Amino acid sequence: MSLHPAVAAVRRGVREVLEELEPGDTVLVACSGGADSLALLSAAVFEGRKAAVRVVGTTIDHGLQEGSAEHARRVVEQMAGLGADETASARVQVSGAGEGPEAAARRARYDVLEQMRQHFGAALVLLGHTRDDQAETVLLGLTRGSGARSLAGMRRSFDHYARPLLDVSRDDTVTACQVEGIDFWEDPHNDDPGYTRVRVRRTVLPVLEEELGPGVAEALARTADQLREDVTFLDETAEAEFWSLEELDVADYPKALATRILRIAAIEAGATDSELFHVHVERLFALATGRIQGEIQLPGRVTAYREGRSVEFRPTAVTS
Amino acid sequence: MSLHPAVAAVRRGVREVLEELEPGDTVLVACSGGADSLALLSAAVFEGRKAAVRVVGTTIDHGLQEGSAEHARRVVEQMAGLGADETASARVQVSGAGEGPEAAARRARYDVLEQMRQHFGAALVLLGHTRDDQAETVLLGLTRGSGARSLAGMRRSFDHYARPLLDVSRDDTVTACQVEGIDFWEDPHNDDPGYTRVRVRRTVLPVLEEELGPGVAEALARTADQLREDVTFLDETAEAEFWSLEELDVADYPKALATRILRIAAIEAGATDSELFHVHVERLFALATGRIQGEIQLPGRVTAYREGRSVEFRPTAVTS
Repeated sequence: MSLHPAVAAVRRGVREVLEELEPGDTVLVACSGGADSLALLSAAVFEGRKAAVRVVGTTIDHGLQEGSAEHARRVVEQMAGLGADETASARVQVSGAGEGPEAAARRARYDVLEQMRQHFGAALVLLGHTRDDQAETVLLGLTRGSGARSLAGMRRSFDHYARPLLDVSRDDTVTACQVEGIDFWEDPHNDDPGYTRVRVRRTVLPVLEEELGPGVAEALARTADQLREDVTFLDETAEAEFWSLEELDVADYPKALATRILRIAAIEAGATDSELFHVHVERLFALATGRIQGEIQLPGRVTAYREGRSVEFRPTAVTS
Repeated sequence: MSLHPAVAAVRRGVREVLEELEPGDTVLVACSGGADSLALLSAAVFEGRKAAVRVVGTTIDHGLQEGSAEHARRVVEQMAGLGADETASARVQVSGAGEGPEAAARRARYDVLEQMRQHFGAALVLLGHTRDDQAETVLLGLTRGSGARSLAGMRRSFDHYARPLLDVSRDDTVTACQVEGIDFWEDPHNDDPGYTRVRVRRTVLPVLEEELGPGVAEALARTADQLREDVTFLDETAEAEFWSLEELDVADYPKALATRILRIAAIEAGATDSELFHVHVERLFALATGRIQGEIQLPGRVTAYREGRSVEFRPTAVTS
């Protein structure tokens, strides 16, 4: 019997990532119990054996839904049944101080994944995001209007993390599970139209495919790949220029670099990265190029002003 | 009576562009008879008087629709009635050799606009594209998946051309016409779902606004502004690097520059710009970085191959 194309696609993505490892290395697979991460785990076991790489299946119990502990137990059993060399589950505490619940859950998840990675001495953690997740991320970024950074989507890899399925469609992960007889979980959150991402998945992308032709998700993912190259180069160039400057005079830079240098400078001066929006950077640029005068208040209680040809920062005075 | 905000928005856009001109200069306004370009013409007449700038209203008869000559006559009358200092119409011949009908019509339009600009000695030609046109352009580019270049949308100005309404919504141009009692034409092409752009306007953008919240068109236009800065800088940097290279060895460049340098090199070697897609450039990059061997066929009968560390090009051999 020949290999089903969906299974082949998932395995190919995993194989390309595992090629970077040495025999005897360990990979951790982050598994929610959904089709994408179970297909990922199954492929990691298959390719891991060929490459003599040890596969640890892990799952995280956010404790946010009723029955989540029971669900985590079931995923651990599934991972063991699929042939993971070891399995683990961890409970996280989500404290949402100063963040939305989704951002807080994401950060808690990465914190605990990192602990597990160190515990198992894993060279790499595999995440199950698919091409469809990437397309949704790009569309969400597009409508924020904050430029290449928000369109560039998710990275293929960072630090000790990799996303082997970014070229694989979500449908293919579902088919791979069905072909392999893997019983996957369907997260009720994926049907809750209260989440913007769910509306993008269920309404926006299908309309785009219908009106503009098939292959939209693929085109969006490809766009993200290219923009990520651009953003990486631009950010690194701006970073190098920033540290080489004696004073913050950006008048001679093209705007693409000037705005990035100003952003880095503001964050170095204490402005809050996550709250520093396009509108703030545009005002800094107008200040730097003499198109506006006076002071600019930035999030994080930082005030920007101009001194000669240079933009300067100081803590915002607190008035009582 | 106070000025209606829609009229104010159109005039503000025009005023910012006319500020670049000297008293006594001439501007040409390209007018289709639609709400956007008639609102533009009316604002140009108002702001032109204040700035002592002469306004020439022009319209183009593509001869593609029945009654197009009659329509052009009517637009000329309207422009004169709205106070244009001079008016003109020109008939164009659209020859579609090697292009689609839309591309051919666009090129013919710019050719005849340029002739009229020179005839009237105009410093600037104003084009009536709105923020909604820009958002549609970005969405169309997004789904082509060819990176920042296709997402960067329309430029605010180029050569002797400017688009003063890129920050103004189409609705505002309609309202401005209604408030000013201007009877505008509704192009039947704007309702023809055979055009992808019409489907984007009538279906895709409304769904995006409904599911992701209002302000999507504005966010898309803002994204285009930022990407255009990035693309300009990246393209200019790549261009300068290309001409400084003794041989086409791009191994030490970041991918964002390497792919752009290879693209420029291929076009200089005779490859067809408009047919050189992302997939070709990706293969050139793989050849340049040693990930693939052999020869690559490029559109325009150009063959790329590797010689030592350098990528070389030669005309593709014609076999009979």
